[in-house]
Amino acid sequence: MSGKFADRMQSVHKSFIREILKVTEDPSIISFAGGLPNARLFPVQEMARAAQKVLAENGEAALQYSTTEGYLPLREYIAGRYARSGLNVDPDDILITNGSQQGLDLLAKAFLDRGDGVLVERPTYLAALQSFGLFQPVFHSLTLHEDGVDIPQLEKALHEHHPKIFYSVPTFQNPTGITYSMDKRREAAEALDGQDAIFIEDDPYGELRFRGQSLPPMKSLLGDGSVLLGTFSKIISPGVRLGWMVASPEIMEKAIIAKQASDLHSSCLIQRVVHQYLLDNDIDQHISRIRAAYGSQRDLMVKMIEDLFPKEVKYTRPEGGMFLWLTMPEGISSLDLFHRAIKEKVAFVPGQAFFADGSGDNTMRLNFSNSDEEKIEEGMRRLSKVVSAMV
Amino acid sequence: MSGKFADRMQSVHKSFIREILKVTEDPSIISFAGGLPNARLFPVQEMARAAQKVLAENGEAALQYSTTEGYLPLREYIAGRYARSGLNVDPDDILITNGSQQGLDLLAKAFLDRGDGVLVERPTYLAALQSFGLFQPVFHSLTLHEDGVDIPQLEKALHEHHPKIFYSVPTFQNPTGITYSMDKRREAAEALDGQDAIFIEDDPYGELRFRGQSLPPMKSLLGDGSVLLGTFSKIISPGVRLGWMVASPEIMEKAIIAKQASDLHSSCLIQRVVHQYLLDNDIDQHISRIRAAYGSQRDLMVKMIEDLFPKEVKYTRPEGGMFLWLTMPEGISSLDLFHRAIKEKVAFVPGQAFFADGSGDNTMRLNFSNSDEEKIEEGMRRLSKVVSAMV
Repeated sequence: MSGKFADRMQSVHKSFIREILKVTEDPSIISFAGGLPNARLFPVQEMARAAQKVLAENGEAALQYSTTEGYLPLREYIAGRYARSGLNVDPDDILITNGSQQGLDLLAKAFLDRGDGVLVERPTYLAALQSFGLFQPVFHSLTLHEDGVDIPQLEKALHEHHPKIFYSVPTFQNPTGITYSMDKRREAAEALDGQDAIFIEDDPYGELRFRGQSLPPMKSLLGDGSVLLGTFSKIISPGVRLGWMVASPEIMEKAIIAKQASDLHSSCLIQRVVHQYLLDNDIDQHISRIRAAYGSQRDLMVKMIEDLFPKEVKYTRPEGGMFLWLTMPEGISSLDLFHRAIKEKVAFVPGQAFFADGSGDNTMRLNFSNSDEEKIEEGMRRLSKVVSAMV
Repeated sequence: MSGKFADRMQSVHKSFIREILKVTEDPSIISFAGGLPNARLFPVQEMARAAQKVLAENGEAALQYSTTEGYLPLREYIAGRYARSGLNVDPDDILITNGSQQGLDLLAKAFLDRGDGVLVERPTYLAALQSFGLFQPVFHSLTLHEDGVDIPQLEKALHEHHPKIFYSVPTFQNPTGITYSMDKRREAAEALDGQDAIFIEDDPYGELRFRGQSLPPMKSLLGDGSVLLGTFSKIISPGVRLGWMVASPEIMEKAIIAKQASDLHSSCLIQRVVHQYLLDNDIDQHISRIRAAYGSQRDLMVKMIEDLFPKEVKYTRPEGGMFLWLTMPEGISSLDLFHRAIKEKVAFVPGQAFFADGSGDNTMRLNFSNSDEEKIEEGMRRLSKVVSAMV
């Protein structure tokens, strides 16, 4: 009966990462594979108090149907937070979504016809490839340098392919941890100026900076030519599945139609609980605790690489986020390495999954947010042995 | 810049009902327009206790990322509940979704290429037209009699159009309140036997039966040839945005891929809270309170029609659900009537929105679940005046 499924389903498969994560469920394996925040930093008690308050004070409204746009006080809070960092956003330009992942699906629905061009970084966020992939676009990959996308390649691709979308994670990218420099932000904005392509700025990690100076979002340079995606997943909890999209009124109208058709609206109970949590707690203090923890975990992981890994292995030194990215000499397969690593009870994600063009066989992603120092030391010791034996 | 949007966005517009609901926000208007459950019947305190327990006992897991399929104990609970009513379902055949609405989106993604045929009832659930509509199928409408779909039309459409999907709400349909009789269920199942079309059985209201005998779901007759959609929206709360899909392993695989690309998974916090609520409370007792309330509201609304409306106006007498359906003599426009009714401070949904083929101008949907008896009496008195003046 598979002839009955839509064409789009033939080209997509179960997430490779998902399958890998199943392998790593064995508790004896130290896993740097997932992309999980550290659960010990979740504000569990504060969320419980917020839930009590919402249900005691506005229980019926919290449990009833609500508007597609999302809970207005929450959208006002988000707008206020952007205002503090210099980005002027109207609450009406914000749509509440189920994590920023749903933003990708809604934008794909709004923009992509089969065969349309989509520019992505090489490598890029795997689940964006999956979201967009269901709408059967043609992906064009752009080289990602240590300070951001390759500008001549971007200019050429814009002119040659007239893409509908340029998708990017310009700050602490998943998978590489790379951040666009200020110069690169300006150059990319100039290249995009006057083009039809919408710049989708996926920013789940921007608040997780543990050193260096904050940079303005691309949206502050691009205005209506961009859509900014944010999320509470990395600063409060991914289990609430709550994110948002910032877009111009014209795009917002289409996104709301798509959201309505997708699931009517995001849970208003969850929206009100998160809003109550934000009202009653100091989120900046909470985020600074996360930053401090991830910063020292990152430092330890980098130090273990410096101390134990062959010098031929290159790695990124991110100033924030949750990931390190390793590049081994050409010819070393990280998938081979993965199978050997599993035998040594340590896991990571082979990098190839993050490349739209199937390259990147010699790369790997390491997550440092979800392992304490003891696990990082022991896990990196195990991994260094496997890498040293292959390089 | 609208040239950049996808083709699919040109044919869809903001929900008509959504726009109507905005008109009816005026608190002096008595509204039978929405499709809302009665918020006074929501188990607010019980949900608060469930939230406390989940966050106290499993807070970190509830706030972390989780599996796409959904929380296994919740899926086991749902399977157990189906087993009680004679439907044998494996928990692995259940996918947790954001309301049953998301099930429509996932199935559209899994099945529909542009131009594929979709059979719907005339009239049908408006938001299903919107969900499927984004994937640009061709809708074929089948006459809906008081005991279900017209079988010869169904047979003819299956052979002529080779549709991918037949979408139906066979029990207490939205908008009409009509339920397929047992004979009609068997005849429809026979017509579908051996055909490629998947029967999507949307069942949000099945538990809301206030008289007559329960009928088996179409899935018990059709097996793997059908997908059954359920929801907690009408028996616990729509604000939790939690529903589910029951499908064969082959379809489930595609639905999981689509769900993953759409939003990774539904909120595990909400899933655990609803599951805890179900463990700690007697849901059947709760549902019987809802049934009793909606049953007497329905009876009163029917009585008001009998007493006050012109005899030329036909109406359904549903044994459950949330809606009545009125058909006026040909030539009477319910949209004209709507504008006059608003002036008299009473609202309903003009029926045309529920017809894929644009017919139904002389019909209207009345919701009885969300109005108490006083409002039903006064609102129906106002409406009867407007109707009597036109018929």
